[in-house]
Amino acid sequence: MTDTTACPVISRMATNASDFDVRLDALLAWEGVSDVDVQHRVEEILDAVRTRGDAALIETSNRFDRLAVSSMAELELSPERLRQAHDGLGAEQRDALASAAERIRLYHERQKPESWQYTESDGTVLGQKVSPLDRAGIYVPGGKAAYPSSVLMNAIPAHVAGVREIIMVVPTPDGVLNELVLAAAHLAGVDRVFTLGGAQAVAALAYGTETVPRVDKIVGPGNIYVATAKRAVFGQVGIDMIAGPSEILVISDGGTDPEWLAMDLFSQAEHDEDAQAILVSWDAEHLAAVEAAIERLLPTLEREAIVRESLARRGALIHCEDRQQAVALINRIAPEHLELSVADPEEWLPDIRHAGAIFMGRYTAEALGDYCAGPNHVLPTSGTARFSSPLGVYDFQKRSSIIHCSAEGASALGKIASTLARGESLTAHARSAEYRIK
Amino acid sequence: MTDTTACPVISRMATNASDFDVRLDALLAWEGVSDVDVQHRVEEILDAVRTRGDAALIETSNRFDRLAVSSMAELELSPERLRQAHDGLGAEQRDALASAAERIRLYHERQKPESWQYTESDGTVLGQKVSPLDRAGIYVPGGKAAYPSSVLMNAIPAHVAGVREIIMVVPTPDGVLNELVLAAAHLAGVDRVFTLGGAQAVAALAYGTETVPRVDKIVGPGNIYVATAKRAVFGQVGIDMIAGPSEILVISDGGTDPEWLAMDLFSQAEHDEDAQAILVSWDAEHLAAVEAAIERLLPTLEREAIVRESLARRGALIHCEDRQQAVALINRIAPEHLELSVADPEEWLPDIRHAGAIFMGRYTAEALGDYCAGPNHVLPTSGTARFSSPLGVYDFQKRSSIIHCSAEGASALGKIASTLARGESLTAHARSAEYRIK
Repeated sequence: MTDTTACPVISRMATNASDFDVRLDALLAWEGVSDVDVQHRVEEILDAVRTRGDAALIETSNRFDRLAVSSMAELELSPERLRQAHDGLGAEQRDALASAAERIRLYHERQKPESWQYTESDGTVLGQKVSPLDRAGIYVPGGKAAYPSSVLMNAIPAHVAGVREIIMVVPTPDGVLNELVLAAAHLAGVDRVFTLGGAQAVAALAYGTETVPRVDKIVGPGNIYVATAKRAVFGQVGIDMIAGPSEILVISDGGTDPEWLAMDLFSQAEHDEDAQAILVSWDAEHLAAVEAAIERLLPTLEREAIVRESLARRGALIHCEDRQQAVALINRIAPEHLELSVADPEEWLPDIRHAGAIFMGRYTAEALGDYCAGPNHVLPTSGTARFSSPLGVYDFQKRSSIIHCSAEGASALGKIASTLARGESLTAHARSAEYRIK
Repeated sequence: MTDTTACPVISRMATNASDFDVRLDALLAWEGVSDVDVQHRVEEILDAVRTRGDAALIETSNRFDRLAVSSMAELELSPERLRQAHDGLGAEQRDALASAAERIRLYHERQKPESWQYTESDGTVLGQKVSPLDRAGIYVPGGKAAYPSSVLMNAIPAHVAGVREIIMVVPTPDGVLNELVLAAAHLAGVDRVFTLGGAQAVAALAYGTETVPRVDKIVGPGNIYVATAKRAVFGQVGIDMIAGPSEILVISDGGTDPEWLAMDLFSQAEHDEDAQAILVSWDAEHLAAVEAAIERLLPTLEREAIVRESLARRGALIHCEDRQQAVALINRIAPEHLELSVADPEEWLPDIRHAGAIFMGRYTAEALGDYCAGPNHVLPTSGTARFSSPLGVYDFQKRSSIIHCSAEGASALGKIASTLARGESLTAHARSAEYRIK
C-alpha cells in the first residue's frame, strides 16, 4: 500500500453505499454557533462601545489590532487617501477593477425593485413604495481574507439602491493597509472608511459613537467575533446572513476537461481549510480522471497546503446513479455555488430548487462569477440557500405599504373590518372602522 | 387642581420645548432584549426538543400550557377539524373572513417577484431565478392575542409564493381552541396545524421532530420566549423580524373629526399596555379638541383599562410648528403605522422615507388595513422600518443567481478575473478562469 491510497487526497463516496446518507450528513455538518466564552467577550465589547463610544474604539483597536493610536482621526481614511490608492494601481489592475465594477453595476441596476400601485374600481389605491436605506455599513475583513472584489460586491448594490451614505470598516492589524481594498472603495462609491474591525466595529456601526455614525444595516463577512456581534445587534440594525465557510458543488456529465474541473474545485478549496468542494457525476471513469488531475495539479498550486487540508477534511467526489440522483443531491445540499458542467444546463434549471448561484455550462467557471460576471458573490452558505438569497439591491431598500381609501372604499371595507374586529374583541378597531361607513 | 390636570390621560409635548428631544427619545425607547434568565430557559427548551424530539414537546406542552396529553396525535388538528371550525361560523363572520382573505390574496399576487434574465451581445446570459421555500412555519399566539386576521396575513403570502407546505403552530393554554383562528387556517391554505407554543414550538419547526417537519423559515409574532427562541435559531432557519409592541403615528392637518382621530388612537392603544399611539399636528386648538374627545370617549370603551394605561405610559399629543417638522418627526420615528389624516396625502409621500404602512387621507383608518384592505398587517416595529419591510410574498421566496457564459463571454471575463484573482493571491481562481480564455 502506498501513502496515497492510505490517505487519499479527497474522499470518494457513492450514493448506492449503505452508509451514504450518514457520511453525507457528516460531510455537510457545520456548526457556526459561537461558544459561551466568545459570546461573553463580544457582549463586553458591545457594551463598552455603546457606553463609552470613541474611547472604547481606540482602546480595543490598539489592543486587538496592535495599533498605537490616540485619536479617532487616526482611525479614519480620507476620500483623498482612497483616490490615491486607486491612482497608484498599475493600468492592468485598474482597468480590471473598473470593468468588474461596471459589470456589477449594470447587473444590479437590472435587479432594482421599483415602487408600484394600482387603483380599484371605487378609487381606492393600494401599492408599495420602495425606498433606500439612509445609511449602510460594510464590514470588510482584514488580513489574508481582505478582498477588493468583496468591497465592490457589497458597496455597489448599496450605491445602486440609492443609499445616502455608505460607511466601510476594515481592520488593519499591525497598521497594514491593503491598497487594492482602498482602491475598490473609491471605485464603489464608499463615503467614509474607518480602520476598525471585530466586534468593536460592529458595535460602532450599530450604536454610533461621537465619530462613527449609526447605520441602518450592517453587511459583509467576518470572523466568529464579527458574526456573534452581528447576531447580537440584529433588531437594533438590519444584518445580512451570518456566513459560514464557502462551498461549491460541481455536477459533471463527463464531458468537461478533468483539469478544468480539478482547478474549479481548487479555486473553492484555496479560500481556507474549512471551504468545501464537492464534485458529483454518474460517470465513474470521469471521476477517476478528475481525481488523477487533482493529484497531478496539486503540487503546482501556490496554496497547496490549504487546498490539501480543505479537500481532505471537507471535499468529496461523489458517484451517483443518474441525472435524477444528481438533482436530488443539489436540492438536499442547497449549495452556495452550483456549477452545472453539463451539455444542457438549461434543461436542469426547472428542477433546481435551492442554490445561491448557478454557473451554467462548461465555460462558466465559478471564478468568473466571483469577480466580474455581474451577479453578487455574497451568497447564502451552509444550506441556507433553502431560505435566503444572494446579496442584492433589495438588501439596501425597504418597502412601505400604501393604502389610500376612497370614501366609497372605506365604507365597504369598514363593514368587513367591523365584523372581524368584533370577532377579535377589538371594539375600538371596530368603531374606528365604523366611523368611515356611510 | 383637579385629578384630570394632575394626571392627564395622555402626555402633551411641543417640538419647540427645550427638553423635546430628550422627552421624545424617552417616549420611543423600547428594549426588546430578553434577560439572561429567559435566555437560559429558552436554550434548555431548544436543546430538549433538538435532542429528544416529540417526547420533549409533549412534556413542555403539558407543563407550560397545562395540558394532559400523552401522544403527538393529541397535539395535531386535522384538516377536517379546521373545515368544521370554518363551517361552524355564522354567515356574517364567514363572509367577512372570505372577503378579507380574497383581498389579501389579490394584493399579494400583485407583489410577487418574478424570475428575470437578459442576454449580452456575446451570448452570455445573466439573471435571477425566484423560487418558493419548500416549507414555512407560522407561529400564531394563543390566549388574548390569538387573531384570525394574523393567520390570514401570515399564511396567504406563503401560499401565493408557492410554498409547498405551510405548517402552523398555535398554543392552546388549558386546551382552549379558538374557532376563528382554525377557520382562518382553513381559508388561508394551511396544510398542518400543531397545538404547540413557546420556545418548544419554535424548536420543533427549526429542527424538526419525529412528527413535526423541519421548516425553512419561521414567521409570526410571539412573547419574549418565542422572540428569544427565534433569535437563537436564526441561521438554522430563516426568521422574520422580531416584533416589538405595535405603534401608530397619526398626522392631522386639523381637518379630521376629533372623535375619528381619538378612536384611531384607541384602536392602537387597545392592543396592550405597551402599544404606542402618537398624534402630531401644528393646530393647537385641534389637539385640544382631540384630547377632549379622548376624555369623552374613553369611558365608552370595552378595553378602557388597557387603553388608559397605554396612553398614559406611551401615548402623546405633539404640537409641531408646521408640515416640515411633521415630516421630520415621521422620518425620525419611522413608525410601524403612519396615518396621514390630511387633505393632500399624495403630496407628502415623496418626503416620507421610513414607515411600515402609510394610511392616506381621512377615510383610511388603520383598522381597515389591519383586516381587509389587502396589504399585510405584519409590519416593522420600534423604528425598524428604517431597514425592514412589511411581511410579503418575497419573505417566502429566495433567489438564485443565473450565470451562463458563452465561449466568447468566458474568454473576455476570464482575462479580468485572472488579473483580479492574482491581485488577491488566489491563483487557483486565476488558473480556473484562464482555462476558459481562448
